[in-house]
Amino acid sequence: MSDLVGNMLVAQSGGPTAVINASVAGVIQEAGRHPELIEEIYGGLNGILGILNEEFIDIQEEKRAVIEGLKHTPAAALGTCRYKIDFKKKPERAAQEMERLFQVFQAHNIRYFFYVGGNDSQDTAHKIHEHAVQRGYDMRVIGVPKTIDNDLPHTDHCPGYGSVIKYNATTVMEIAADVVSMATDDGSCCVIEVMGRGAGWIAAGTVLAKRSPNDAPHIILLPEIPFQEEPFLRKVKEFVTTLNHCIVVVGEGLKRPSGEEIGADMSRLDAFGHPVLSGAAERVAEIVSGKLKTKTRTVKLGYAQRSAAHCASETDVEEATACGEAAVRAAVQGKSGFMVKIVRLHSNPYQWTTDVQPLQDIANVEHLIPRDWISEDGFVPNEKFVDYARPLIEGQLHLPMEGGLPKFVVLQKFPVEKKLPPRA
Amino acid sequence: MSDLVGNMLVAQSGGPTAVINASVAGVIQEAGRHPELIEEIYGGLNGILGILNEEFIDIQEEKRAVIEGLKHTPAAALGTCRYKIDFKKKPERAAQEMERLFQVFQAHNIRYFFYVGGNDSQDTAHKIHEHAVQRGYDMRVIGVPKTIDNDLPHTDHCPGYGSVIKYNATTVMEIAADVVSMATDDGSCCVIEVMGRGAGWIAAGTVLAKRSPNDAPHIILLPEIPFQEEPFLRKVKEFVTTLNHCIVVVGEGLKRPSGEEIGADMSRLDAFGHPVLSGAAERVAEIVSGKLKTKTRTVKLGYAQRSAAHCASETDVEEATACGEAAVRAAVQGKSGFMVKIVRLHSNPYQWTTDVQPLQDIANVEHLIPRDWISEDGFVPNEKFVDYARPLIEGQLHLPMEGGLPKFVVLQKFPVEKKLPPRA
Repeated sequence: MSDLVGNMLVAQSGGPTAVINASVAGVIQEAGRHPELIEEIYGGLNGILGILNEEFIDIQEEKRAVIEGLKHTPAAALGTCRYKIDFKKKPERAAQEMERLFQVFQAHNIRYFFYVGGNDSQDTAHKIHEHAVQRGYDMRVIGVPKTIDNDLPHTDHCPGYGSVIKYNATTVMEIAADVVSMATDDGSCCVIEVMGRGAGWIAAGTVLAKRSPNDAPHIILLPEIPFQEEPFLRKVKEFVTTLNHCIVVVGEGLKRPSGEEIGADMSRLDAFGHPVLSGAAERVAEIVSGKLKTKTRTVKLGYAQRSAAHCASETDVEEATACGEAAVRAAVQGKSGFMVKIVRLHSNPYQWTTDVQPLQDIANVEHLIPRDWISEDGFVPNEKFVDYARPLIEGQLHLPMEGGLPKFVVLQKFPVEKKLPPRA
Repeated sequence: MSDLVGNMLVAQSGGPTAVINASVAGVIQEAGRHPELIEEIYGGLNGILGILNEEFIDIQEEKRAVIEGLKHTPAAALGTCRYKIDFKKKPERAAQEMERLFQVFQAHNIRYFFYVGGNDSQDTAHKIHEHAVQRGYDMRVIGVPKTIDNDLPHTDHCPGYGSVIKYNATTVMEIAADVVSMATDDGSCCVIEVMGRGAGWIAAGTVLAKRSPNDAPHIILLPEIPFQEEPFLRKVKEFVTTLNHCIVVVGEGLKRPSGEEIGADMSRLDAFGHPVLSGAAERVAEIVSGKLKTKTRTVKLGYAQRSAAHCASETDVEEATACGEAAVRAAVQGKSGFMVKIVRLHSNPYQWTTDVQPLQDIANVEHLIPRDWISEDGFVPNEKFVDYARPLIEGQLHLPMEGGLPKFVVLQKFPVEKKLPPRA
């Protein structure tokens, strides 16, 4: 057991999910159970950027019902950022930023720090942990996993993933019902674009919509499998001929054999220097309509999929909450430099628990779909994947409604008084 | 009261909705209450096309639970078509087709015909009614309104509309939560494309997501209001400056002042000779990113919005069912050549009933949003629209689930024996 007494800080980072706030709720509620160690509970606004700017809010001033309501509120209630303390490219600036972070931690006596995020965020948490050790600043740093991409290693899956595939699979089922009922024309192909840059977990998850062999999706284009036009077009033609329609799901990061992303617009780059992807579905549809003269339609779910609380998985919400709670329990037990992970005990019936993994094993490792979880022709995940993914979408989140629309909570955000001069 | 005894046929036409099957269920269930007049209950597959091909199914062979389940099953369970008996462009062929239709009706002693569809479909129903009168073939023809576009005249609104705007408004709220929480960058603009070619009812409906003035959507681009780049860009800049983000909803049929559709790809035309629209959001996003150098994202909901039973409005389902029932009641009362319409008795609390309107008043009239329901600058519907639309999204459809995904029904489709030689 830790005897470290001080204040606690929780922050969110990276792209939001439908359940990232549930993890924050878990952290806050569990922290409240350890008043002997955790004195003040602060939220850091906008991830690491807000911490650098000393933008803290006092969580204990928030209503309990609002904290509970975070469990059904999508996106990042504390605000988030895509900001990397980049020791590789900008070592001097990174060192200054790390110095500033610890000034802020010290000024507010932050002794417990929880960072909820994906790959880059776990890397940041790891660096903060290492610097704390180097400086001899006594602080517990625990990462809480979050990413719809499901690409973190060591955890069975990531909170956020179950909800995005539940929503996407539901959407594929509904679109398929629509396309099937319209199939009096000479065949049609509907291309649905889902998120997922490097890993195809999100695209793969739509296979759950398939209850029988002829059900959609008929083809799933995964970023892991280089896109080959000819076998793809053959497959589309096969389905259009036999079923009069073909539903294709494409992960936004689908690549040509050359490695070039099929939907990449090289003229726009994001904060990490990756190309902004906007057009995988449009490109694939162009190929189909151009080569096969088949009527095409596209759907691009974009942000809708990662924020769809109205179709969130109850299992996912429970796990996200539990990961937040487990992070605090690990910290008060004296652990630091770990990420919480979900451990699957059993698939059917589904049983799981949480454990922790050293952050150094997590940072910047991208977990892809094993090749033997995908059919030989590469066009659809197989039973191994289905057994893995099926339990993650079970149960419906109970979403309070007002006037026929969801009632989300908003934090009141009572600011904590700043103690430092503004950042240079 | 009618004393016409014979068989009944129901068919669906045009683009499906989340609740078009509820209307079919209403027709079938009400027909079952009039066994003294309605002997056999048939479903026509794939709209008018299937009737021409004598493709009927015997509804009485279907399980009762399946008919009830149609009320939560999206898309057209009987199949649908976009096919027009075109007396203007192809008068000879149209006359042949009409002749064939009546051969089919006569062969199966069809005396009650219900056609569930939008504008073009009501036109078809009207022609069939007129031909029946001309031929002295005793038959009751009643149209049942259906269209997400909400552009049929005389009815207060159309079944299908409440569900599409409930889903779209929910999606806008969720995307907005996501974008707000990501707003640490230098401002961003998310453009969400929704359906609606001529009328902006669908785009306008997303205004319901707005609970306070700074809520999304910030700008709604309606096909009724010609798109002017400069005032639009000024408005986007205003929101990005004050809120650090701007959520724009665009109806797919948005037009330039020249009348040209902004997202039109003139190289692809649909069965009615209209250009296939695919790119309104992409075009608008290009304009924003090009002129303002603002980061943009796009979402294109496409077919997902019109088939989203998982987010359907219970009010809409009830009204769709009631319209089907009312059609049968009108027919057994001896009426023919009418469309069922929804009559609003009161907005708050919401009260409605059904009535009928002559089909000749409906066919090919497009009902647009009144100009005085839209703000002076044209960028957002006003309180008049909100009062109108708000009741239509109330209540959640109870959707049976299996393995975390919707459980839709599928008709078994027991074919009725054909009595005619195949169509020439």
